[in-house]
Amino acid sequence: MARNMSYMIIFISVFGLCLSSKSTLINLTTAVFNDYDPSIRPYCQGHEQVNVTMDLAVRQLIDMNEPDQIIKLNLWIRLRWIDCLLTWTPSDYDNITDLIVPFDKVWTPDITIYDSVSEELYGLEKFRANVSYDGAINYNFPTVIEIQCQVDVTNFPFDRQMCPLQFGSWIYTGNLLDMNIENDHADLSALKENVEWEISKVPAEKHIKKYSLSSDPFVDLTYNLYLKRKPRYYEANIILPSIIITLLATLGFLLPVDSGEKVSLEVTVMLSLTVFQLLVADRLPPSDEARPLLGEFFTFTLILCGLSTFVQVAVINIYYRGDRKMSGWMNKLILKPLAKITLTKATLLNQKAHDDDNTTNDDSVDDLDNATKWQTLSICIDRVGLILFIVILTIGCIVIFTHFT
Amino acid sequence: MARNMSYMIIFISVFGLCLSSKSTLINLTTAVFNDYDPSIRPYCQGHEQVNVTMDLAVRQLIDMNEPDQIIKLNLWIRLRWIDCLLTWTPSDYDNITDLIVPFDKVWTPDITIYDSVSEELYGLEKFRANVSYDGAINYNFPTVIEIQCQVDVTNFPFDRQMCPLQFGSWIYTGNLLDMNIENDHADLSALKENVEWEISKVPAEKHIKKYSLSSDPFVDLTYNLYLKRKPRYYEANIILPSIIITLLATLGFLLPVDSGEKVSLEVTVMLSLTVFQLLVADRLPPSDEARPLLGEFFTFTLILCGLSTFVQVAVINIYYRGDRKMSGWMNKLILKPLAKITLTKATLLNQKAHDDDNTTNDDSVDDLDNATKWQTLSICIDRVGLILFIVILTIGCIVIFTHFT
Amino acid sequence: MARNMSYMIIFISVFGLCLSSKSTLINLTTAVFNDYDPSIRPYCQGHEQVNVTMDLAVRQLIDMNEPDQIIKLNLWIRLRWIDCLLTWTPSDYDNITDLIVPFDKVWTPDITIYDSVSEELYGLEKFRANVSYDGAINYNFPTVIEIQCQVDVTNFPFDRQMCPLQFGSWIYTGNLLDMNIENDHADLSALKENVEWEISKVPAEKHIKKYSLSSDPFVDLTYNLYLKRKPRYYEANIILPSIIITLLATLGFLLPVDSGEKVSLEVTVMLSLTVFQLLVADRLPPSDEARPLLGEFFTFTLILCGLSTFVQVAVINIYYRGDRKMSGWMNKLILKPLAKITLTKATLLNQKAHDDDNTTNDDSVDDLDNATKWQTLSICIDRVGLILFIVILTIGCIVIFTHFT
Amino acid sequence: MARNMSYMIIFISVFGLCLSSKSTLINLTTAVFNDYDPSIRPYCQGHEQVNVTMDLAVRQLIDMNEPDQIIKLNLWIRLRWIDCLLTWTPSDYDNITDLIVPFDKVWTPDITIYDSVSEELYGLEKFRANVSYDGAINYNFPTVIEIQCQVDVTNFPFDRQMCPLQFGSWIYTGNLLDMNIENDHADLSALKENVEWEISKVPAEKHIKKYSLSSDPFVDLTYNLYLKRKPRYYEANIILPSIIITLLATLGFLLPVDSGEKVSLEVTVMLSLTVFQLLVADRLPPSDEARPLLGEFFTFTLILCGLSTFVQVAVINIYYRGDRKMSGWMNKLILKPLAKITLTKATLLNQKAHDDDNTTNDDSVDDLDNATKWQTLSICIDRVGLILFIVILTIGCIVIFTHFT
Amino acid sequence: MARNMSYMIIFISVFGLCLSSKSTLINLTTAVFNDYDPSIRPYCQGHEQVNVTMDLAVRQLIDMNEPDQIIKLNLWIRLRWIDCLLTWTPSDYDNITDLIVPFDKVWTPDITIYDSVSEELYGLEKFRANVSYDGAINYNFPTVIEIQCQVDVTNFPFDRQMCPLQFGSWIYTGNLLDMNIENDHADLSALKENVEWEISKVPAEKHIKKYSLSSDPFVDLTYNLYLKRKPRYYEANIILPSIIITLLATLGFLLPVDSGEKVSLEVTVMLSLTVFQLLVADRLPPSDEARPLLGEFFTFTLILCGLSTFVQVAVINIYYRGDRKMSGWMNKLILKPLAKITLTKATLLNQKAHDDDNTTNDDSVDDLDNATKWQTLSICIDRVGLILFIVILTIGCIVIFTHFT
Repeated sequence: MARNMSYMIIFISVFGLCLSSKSTLINLTTAVFNDYDPSIRPYCQGHEQVNVTMDLAVRQLIDMNEPDQIIKLNLWIRLRWIDCLLTWTPSDYDNITDLIVPFDKVWTPDITIYDSVSEELYGLEKFRANVSYDGAINYNFPTVIEIQCQVDVTNFPFDRQMCPLQFGSWIYTGNLLDMNIENDHADLSALKENVEWEISKVPAEKHIKKYSLSSDPFVDLTYNLYLKRKPRYYEANIILPSIIITLLATLGFLLPVDSGEKVSLEVTVMLSLTVFQLLVADRLPPSDEARPLLGEFFTFTLILCGLSTFVQVAVINIYYRGDRKMSGWMNKLILKPLAKITLTKATLLNQKAHDDDNTTNDDSVDDLDNATKWQTLSICIDRVGLILFIVILTIGCIVIFTHFT
Repeated sequence: MARNMSYMIIFISVFGLCLSSKSTLINLTTAVFNDYDPSIRPYCQGHEQVNVTMDLAVRQLIDMNEPDQIIKLNLWIRLRWIDCLLTWTPSDYDNITDLIVPFDKVWTPDITIYDSVSEELYGLEKFRANVSYDGAINYNFPTVIEIQCQVDVTNFPFDRQMCPLQFGSWIYTGNLLDMNIENDHADLSALKENVEWEISKVPAEKHIKKYSLSSDPFVDLTYNLYLKRKPRYYEANIILPSIIITLLATLGFLLPVDSGEKVSLEVTVMLSLTVFQLLVADRLPPSDEARPLLGEFFTFTLILCGLSTFVQVAVINIYYRGDRKMSGWMNKLILKPLAKITLTKATLLNQKAHDDDNTTNDDSVDDLDNATKWQTLSICIDRVGLILFIVILTIGCIVIFTHFT
Repeated sequence: MARNMSYMIIFISVFGLCLSSKSTLINLTTAVFNDYDPSIRPYCQGHEQVNVTMDLAVRQLIDMNEPDQIIKLNLWIRLRWIDCLLTWTPSDYDNITDLIVPFDKVWTPDITIYDSVSEELYGLEKFRANVSYDGAINYNFPTVIEIQCQVDVTNFPFDRQMCPLQFGSWIYTGNLLDMNIENDHADLSALKENVEWEISKVPAEKHIKKYSLSSDPFVDLTYNLYLKRKPRYYEANIILPSIIITLLATLGFLLPVDSGEKVSLEVTVMLSLTVFQLLVADRLPPSDEARPLLGEFFTFTLILCGLSTFVQVAVINIYYRGDRKMSGWMNKLILKPLAKITLTKATLLNQKAHDDDNTTNDDSVDDLDNATKWQTLSICIDRVGLILFIVILTIGCIVIFTHFT
Repeated sequence: MARNMSYMIIFISVFGLCLSSKSTLINLTTAVFNDYDPSIRPYCQGHEQVNVTMDLAVRQLIDMNEPDQIIKLNLWIRLRWIDCLLTWTPSDYDNITDLIVPFDKVWTPDITIYDSVSEELYGLEKFRANVSYDGAINYNFPTVIEIQCQVDVTNFPFDRQMCPLQFGSWIYTGNLLDMNIENDHADLSALKENVEWEISKVPAEKHIKKYSLSSDPFVDLTYNLYLKRKPRYYEANIILPSIIITLLATLGFLLPVDSGEKVSLEVTVMLSLTVFQLLVADRLPPSDEARPLLGEFFTFTLILCGLSTFVQVAVINIYYRGDRKMSGWMNKLILKPLAKITLTKATLLNQKAHDDDNTTNDDSVDDLDNATKWQTLSICIDRVGLILFIVILTIGCIVIFTHFT
Repeated sequence: MARNMSYMIIFISVFGLCLSSKSTLINLTTAVFNDYDPSIRPYCQGHEQVNVTMDLAVRQLIDMNEPDQIIKLNLWIRLRWIDCLLTWTPSDYDNITDLIVPFDKVWTPDITIYDSVSEELYGLEKFRANVSYDGAINYNFPTVIEIQCQVDVTNFPFDRQMCPLQFGSWIYTGNLLDMNIENDHADLSALKENVEWEISKVPAEKHIKKYSLSSDPFVDLTYNLYLKRKPRYYEANIILPSIIITLLATLGFLLPVDSGEKVSLEVTVMLSLTVFQLLVADRLPPSDEARPLLGEFFTFTLILCGLSTFVQVAVINIYYRGDRKMSGWMNKLILKPLAKITLTKATLLNQKAHDDDNTTNDDSVDDLDNATKWQTLSICIDRVGLILFIVILTIGCIVIFTHFT
């Protein structure tokens, strides 16, 4: 029997890495992990279900890529569970109550983040776990996640977003592995501020779902990341320039035809608006449901400028009509009322008066020669266009911007 | 003999990780995987062929890169097969019916996705498998695939695409490993909607092919992903602006020569169209067979604008011809009929009438001085150009857009 | 001795993974790989040299990046060799003739692709090999390679390219490892067509080279990938627009000076050509030897337009010279002949005739006032410029485009 | 007993890799690492706490990506600690005092860099450690880190930045693992200069923090990287061109209305400024708190140019008013004082004098015809605009640039 | 004893992988590597220092990224050293003199490339080593390196660069591991030419440095890669167009004011130059010390064009001054001398003579009306401007381009 024992000792000493007196830590580790298989879920009498408690600290929002709708975050994840197989009596081992071991020495829950577009929870398998003598395991690790998050850009650049971060065990059902939230909200105390986005709150929720595949419930924890964009950058670089450019379009109506720059001003403004529209479009996802109101604004001003260019070409055309005869009805029904409305009559009368003081005011337009009539008409149309342009622009802006919430 | 046994026990206890009474799960795992080699295909009497059933859930379309023709998808793949070597009697082991083990502990089929441009089925080797007592293995895993998918952009942005996702065992012939579809269609219940593409349906097919290499059949499962683009983004950002710009080209004909902006308007429009064409071309693959109709439209309008620029330069040239004599035949055969057609005669007559009321209408054009004749001719050509431009543009648009299906 | 045997059995059973009766496949695997070291080249009496036969199937050309001269291909590589150490008698093992084992269980040749810019033959170590009872090993795997390929863009976009794919063992000399081609040409039967490039043929060659390092021969197999670009995309998006824009430059000569748009038209055309040149340059490698003829064409038209702008500025300058006296010799030696050549004389005579019918035709130019003389001169220069421009452009185009092969 | 010994020897010889006489180094390694577990923290009597001393050498700043606020550095990290379990007597082993072993043979502290956006301390596990006979371990390794660093771009391109590099053990509390700084400052002796940034100093600090999670202190070492941008590139490529373009805007006021280029000059300048603003904005993070003063400058000039365009359209409008009567009050209250202020009166008088020498200077303006009055007014407004533009521009520039620190 | 031996044999046979008679290669491998630890430096009596000889073959320059100053190379590295522990007598083993084994079976020097921006010597651990019976180990491998290389762009695009590739052992001091160069120069016989860069020579140097850390010497081998840019691409696409555009600026002085295109030509040229400057700036690093002379040229021409625009606005202003009186001193001191210098006088005299033949030449300018005087002045200034512009441009170009070395 002694011999058998001696063999046993030899073997144990060889395989168990020598229970020498050198280090209590090594003895403890050897004893605790002696017949432990990290690939098997801890399962003991009275501990049929593993209970994982999770806490999340948001360290920083690294990047929000709107066109691809991908958000990149630096998170600190804290997991805690009881492994009933890893216990010891501290008094037997120099009162050591905690053991720090590499990740792959203990069983770990297969926590996954849903909708990741790159690796699954990078870092989950790189750190070390803290094992307590009562079997409590703390496993904290920093990770960088990239997930898709539907971006609603309707109110861009005054938008708020909500990205759900959904964590769950991939293979274990709720019966085998239950998850719980440590705190109602993710820990934002270590948050480093992002320059573009403000993280307003990150409430956590626990969901228990049943998929069609199996009758067992699946548990997931969802942290809803509420974001609010800081708009100052876009106000200064996109909104302000585009408003200034749109206002330039009104100048087209004020430019006299003689200046020879009416059309080129209008066309330049239109092209600038198109470029701005493309610039904004490039920064945003090609979404169907949620077009940014800013985009609607650009489309609206683009059409408006197109129409005003058309009007100004007509104005120029009329201006250069020379002394072809203006038909009577046009004179009566269009030129006269228009002149009245746009106060052009008064100005012309002044001029008239200057030339010839004894004419009556009422018939003044009739007495003009044809060329002057056409030019007066063109000025009238310009003024009507200007007024209409400003009115429609104002109404349009009000309609569009009252949709901002 | 007893001694030998004792040796044996020692060895087994050392290598088999102590069949202690601590955990039934560990006992079970040890027993089941005792002489199991995960690199060898399960092969038992009556189970010569492994039968893999596959189901696919599409989680989300992450990205569709048209120029490179690469589609990126987040899929959930569910595999099921019988491993006849991994069975046990639940009653012997506390009625445990399922065992969850890391991927590399069991044999797995070498399912590959064809035409991947990056890693082969990322994630295939990262998750855990569920082993039932009767040998049924469920292996579900999420994966992100990137495959090439031929994009037919003829109808862009109103196009529909079809991308086949072809799965198959790389090395095993159909005799050794058979694959079957779980459901006729991929599971779209967990689908998160994409902003640009609508996934209309994903029917599955099973193919059995014989390659020239071997007489054995090869099985593959193909899921055809049918996609439909949501066009609103492109309508607002490309089609609408380009239509507005094309319409601006017609204004060139309406501008009087005196305005001095005819040519610069036309050239600006042409350059804008070129820029738009390049923008659209950048977003689409340099395909030979399938040119987008939108591209044909841009090419068509580009040529049309080029021609109209040519016409307008001619108009300006004629307008400024001064009082060189117009040859009689030109007056008779070109100016007169053109003036009639374009109603320019009437206007000129009106003007004429104003100057000199007693001339007859018929010969009016002949009596004009040369400068006026040339100017009249230029106006006529402008009008003819305008009409032709509108007619050709309309016909062209109809011809092109009736090809949209 | 019996005891020794019993020990042996114990050991073998422990290390050899139990030769149980459960699965013939496992028994076979155990027996075959019992004393096999996958890191050692198979070496038996009469098999001193390993003979690797290679076949290549091109699945698809994923991407051709011209500026960086990198080509990305999806290939299927099929290797076959005899491993004299892996043989068995099928009748001993249920007539199993083939064994499928993971890559790392057998020795594999270290086939490398030369000039890879990323990983060496990605996928070479991820698949499973098929071992036959006679030692024949088939190892097929799909791979994505990225290699540098010198692109000759002289004829862009009508160019043809040839990329050699060179495969060889890195360490083994031809004495130890010989390579052979299975077929004269790579297998194109599974090819998926690329939208931009047509793969015309892929002939294979075997090379035996001696490097300076050693007297031993090194074997490599080279597959020459012959590609032909499908030009339609570039025809529509680059060549057509640039031809239209170049033609616009001729319009500058036709525009009368009075229009006030001569110079701005010319400058706009020049800038557009510059932009097009940069666009084309961005798509092509900054090559020294092989400049694209298209680039030469752009450079040529750029210089031509620069010269014509210069001419037109001169024309405008002369036109506005007012009534400074034109020196007699200029009148005689330049104005008169030019007017004759460009038929300007005739037109002027017509005009003259209109004013004053009794002058003689010959001296007409002399009788004009100075301002008219200068203007006539400017018109003459414009016409000469136009003719020269068209002539040089035509000659240039012919010279450049006849270099296309 | 001898037999037992013989067994032991056999076992040891088998597992301990034969203590042959071939190499003292191998004997030493075997002896030292015989019962060492690299996953367990070194723990001996009197060495309860591991003391890690760290030194940092900055090799080069690879890249500073301002828009994403990510800095990429090449660092050399030098760690030193005592492993009480790895000691030997040099005299027993040929006086070998140092042993160089791969990283994974010894326990290493889990030093992490906080806020990394990619891998955790790439290279930490790739190099070899130097073990001294007294247990001192030196572990030096080069690494490339990418961390987020808040960039304050207020003074761009004359800005200074500070990026903290925070190193710490992830799992071990300060009680188990203490960290200390080797030197007050990071070693800059091996620094390779960056072309854009100057590293002025890198002082180190030791922090001891208590997180809410536990009562134990956590130690981190923070190296503050102080950077100073070298501005010459931006001065030449952004600031100089934008100043030149802004100055062009003043030319608009100097251009006479007759030139017909007033508005197009102004609009071109505005568009150029917008393009420059977008270019600068693209290079900088979309920050809310810290807008670059350069951006403020662009916004300011943009608004100023917008206003000046408005003024010039008004000037043109007034210029072309023709001979409509100017009301008396306008003449008196606006034209006259303006003319006086802008010295326009004098010039006009000169002109007047030229025509008619006997008029008195005071009433000169009243005697002009209406058209001339309007034109005089437009010139006056132009001059006032020019003066105001220069004054406001100067004040604005002073206000903005005095904020540079 | 026999029994002990029998045990031993059993053990050895089990662990040593059966010294069967099947393959001499396997026997040899087993014997040679029996008690070899690849993690320990080869150390024998008389071989205290390992001597590594290195040779480098440059296969191709894959990419030179100037803005980030990163160079990517495909290298073939050839290492040779003696491992005194790996020797055998060929005659004992079928005269096998060489053994090819995977990399991780033998000890290898930890050769590192300094200043790598990505992985450390990718490929160093992927290939197979050749072991000779006398212990000589040849380890050749292809690798792709990416290192930072300071680019001096002063002479761009006629620049030459020098990139040092520094190789060294990371941990071993010169006492333990010595490195030597095989050849004075890197092997360029297998070089594939790069389209943009010519590799002129790659001399090698051996350095022995002492760092502050330790008194031991550290050895490194440095290969200096001398590069010469092939400039034709940049000549055609950047230098030629920018010269043509700069020359266009001179045309502004030649354009008469009446053409109405003077300012717009000048502004267009300036914007084009700005765009070109930005294009060139984007391709080059934002370096402080070494600004490209091409950049200086653009800055110079930009300022020159800005000044000339100013001059031309002044010219236009003077031209349209109308008939305001020109003060006598201006006439005498400015107009007259300028007219003389620029030969304007003569032309004006001619004109004068035409009107009125009896005036004397001397006082001609005085007799002109004011409007003509102003216009004459504007023409004079234009001419002076043209001459100054050409002179300054010529001097500037000479000064700048003589700095090219």
